[in-house]
Amino acid sequence: MSKNAIYAQSGGVTAVINASACGIIETARKYPDQIGKVYAGRNGIVGILKEDLIDTSEESSESIARLRTAPSGAFGSCRYKLKSIQESRDAYQRLIDVFAAHEIGYFFYNGGGDSADTCLKIAQISEQMGYPVQALHVPKTVDNDLPVTDSSPGFGSAAKYIATSVLEASLDVASMSLTSTKVFILEVMGRHSGWMAAAGGMASSQSHPIPLVILFPEIAFDREQFIQRVRSTVSEHGQVSIVVSEGVAGKDGRFLAGQDGSDAFGHQQLGGVAPTIACIVKQDTGFKYHWAVADYLQRSARHIASRTDVEQAYAVGESAVLMALDGENSVMPAIVRTSDHPYQWKIGKASLAEVANVEKKLPGHFIDESGYGITQACRDYIAPLMEGEDYPEFRNGVPHYIRLVNKSVPRKLDTDFEV
Amino acid sequence: MSKNAIYAQSGGVTAVINASACGIIETARKYPDQIGKVYAGRNGIVGILKEDLIDTSEESSESIARLRTAPSGAFGSCRYKLKSIQESRDAYQRLIDVFAAHEIGYFFYNGGGDSADTCLKIAQISEQMGYPVQALHVPKTVDNDLPVTDSSPGFGSAAKYIATSVLEASLDVASMSLTSTKVFILEVMGRHSGWMAAAGGMASSQSHPIPLVILFPEIAFDREQFIQRVRSTVSEHGQVSIVVSEGVAGKDGRFLAGQDGSDAFGHQQLGGVAPTIACIVKQDTGFKYHWAVADYLQRSARHIASRTDVEQAYAVGESAVLMALDGENSVMPAIVRTSDHPYQWKIGKASLAEVANVEKKLPGHFIDESGYGITQACRDYIAPLMEGEDYPEFRNGVPHYIRLVNKSVPRKLDTDFEV
Repeated sequence: MSKNAIYAQSGGVTAVINASACGIIETARKYPDQIGKVYAGRNGIVGILKEDLIDTSEESSESIARLRTAPSGAFGSCRYKLKSIQESRDAYQRLIDVFAAHEIGYFFYNGGGDSADTCLKIAQISEQMGYPVQALHVPKTVDNDLPVTDSSPGFGSAAKYIATSVLEASLDVASMSLTSTKVFILEVMGRHSGWMAAAGGMASSQSHPIPLVILFPEIAFDREQFIQRVRSTVSEHGQVSIVVSEGVAGKDGRFLAGQDGSDAFGHQQLGGVAPTIACIVKQDTGFKYHWAVADYLQRSARHIASRTDVEQAYAVGESAVLMALDGENSVMPAIVRTSDHPYQWKIGKASLAEVANVEKKLPGHFIDESGYGITQACRDYIAPLMEGEDYPEFRNGVPHYIRLVNKSVPRKLDTDFEV
Repeated sequence: MSKNAIYAQSGGVTAVINASACGIIETARKYPDQIGKVYAGRNGIVGILKEDLIDTSEESSESIARLRTAPSGAFGSCRYKLKSIQESRDAYQRLIDVFAAHEIGYFFYNGGGDSADTCLKIAQISEQMGYPVQALHVPKTVDNDLPVTDSSPGFGSAAKYIATSVLEASLDVASMSLTSTKVFILEVMGRHSGWMAAAGGMASSQSHPIPLVILFPEIAFDREQFIQRVRSTVSEHGQVSIVVSEGVAGKDGRFLAGQDGSDAFGHQQLGGVAPTIACIVKQDTGFKYHWAVADYLQRSARHIASRTDVEQAYAVGESAVLMALDGENSVMPAIVRTSDHPYQWKIGKASLAEVANVEKKLPGHFIDESGYGITQACRDYIAPLMEGEDYPEFRNGVPHYIRLVNKSVPRKLDTDFEV
């Protein structure tokens, strides 16, 4: 007898997370004998806890196909971290109750490191509680910090957005720097690791060099040395573009700029390091500057998604279903790079025990000796992930992204759950 | 005997100003009997004053054709305003000396309102000084504030970038707002007029509504009323995207946020109103927020240029040359809208006396009664300017934009000029 599946999106969304949803739903629909309906948690796992489920079988195949080109989370996502089984036993019990009520046999959780951990716990506890489900994690994060997998879907598109933006703004500055702005600063995301900052380095190439200074969260900020670098770059090239990670910190480990408050995972919520750097540049050099903060634009810019990224996002969704049908549990489809030149990849399998709560850092040899740039090894790694375009449909001058009907599944439980 | 032409780019560059350069150079090359070489001022009029000219005849026709898809100013631009003829007589004299030395018969000045004024003065003084040149202005400005012409090349692409960015970021927020960010703020350019802010309104459509609050420079900022609007929008839709113009000011006329210093034209240099609005939202509502500052990205984003904008930018360049060959002087090719539905346009002719130093404001009836949104009339105006895509070539994941050789013209004068 076929069992139903539940899919949930977790954490910050990306330009291609819906391509993974597309891969999961389209693949599941090919195996109606094994997988009944695919439900989605409305706003992620919060929707499952509340028994607020979406019936994706109500969507046409055309609508599901169009998920491939739509950014953000089509079913809603959330920042909600289940704690340990001891601390959050009620929540885990509730999940199992909802799974049992809706005859769920498969759980596909689409997220980053935190959700990999949740996914693993669900597999374990569902077994213990006598209602075993196969729990598979589907990788997603612009931060590219998931281990085992060569890259995380979402990163390639964010990298393409950042590199393109730095290139275009730098050309703007190049044409004005004689009499106007000499220093352009772009703030990018990446709390603890410099993947997104490194992507800024891809704006520059041998055939089209751009004078860049990258401020990585991995390198303690040294004001004097930084200003020296800015001065020498402007002196040599007439301009400089600074790509600064939101996570840049001083020698004392304190972030250069932060807003108060923290998110549900206990991460400090950041923002505003670009104006801080601008202020330093102004005080110490007097150069005319401009600054931009990409914020959500960098993770939602589906209009400039990487085709490679879209294909990989789809593939990890598709493979998760195929692995589930193969009887796999507590695993994550991982992207395996089989060749650099030409870039080739395949889908492998990672055990969630190896993935959960492990953060992949930017390798030390990806940052050059100066500490302000990327190495050829880094370029070789990032370049193929940005490769190719995959434009969405436009209507009236703006992208025309699908909005699903998102019809609710009738509730079966007579209890509520406070989230 | 054919005379040479000089082309110069002025002021802040755009995603399509090089398409105008392409139109000028390609058209001039068709009439070698009337137009000899097309020189370009290196870094705009500063290059002409310094007799630092670029010989565009050294560029292949392939390179010139590729200007059509390259953002920023291929020959360099500048912020340098000539004052009145009385105050800047030396500079005008120098321009005429350079023109005479290089047998210039045509001057094409590609810029906004300030450069239209300069262009007009050059036509007048060259006549007075006994070396008459035909001076034609080629419209360009993301600010869309040039009079007579229905729109200014550069605006349509910036509008497309802004609308797309607001749409994509709003979808991101939509998928997270239940447990995370409810308020997204994007700061856009537009010192004194709300054209760019209005473009943010194009993110929303009947088929795809987005909860928006637009802060126009035309409407005095009222904190209490604004917060009420933010609250009611979040209450109704669960989220709000705020598009804020850098030029938003309070009832006392003071900008909400500004950096010190001013540019060469005496404009106050702005930036940083997004964090100011974020702070107000936080203090008064406690809603979780994120903010972005588009800055140069919005005017250099050639990767998402409007096809209509590119076509019009090319057409005004092409027409300027044809008008010059027709003997016109002190004029500017203007875009004339001949029909709204379907959108149709042609090139007309504007007298520089009508263009110089006149700023076209956002019409009052383009802002809706609430003061926080745009009207259907505004939508009808902006929509066709954003219509169509015109993607650049990509290589290795990023746009591959032409870099010209920009070979210098041998100097003929033995005097220098301090700029």
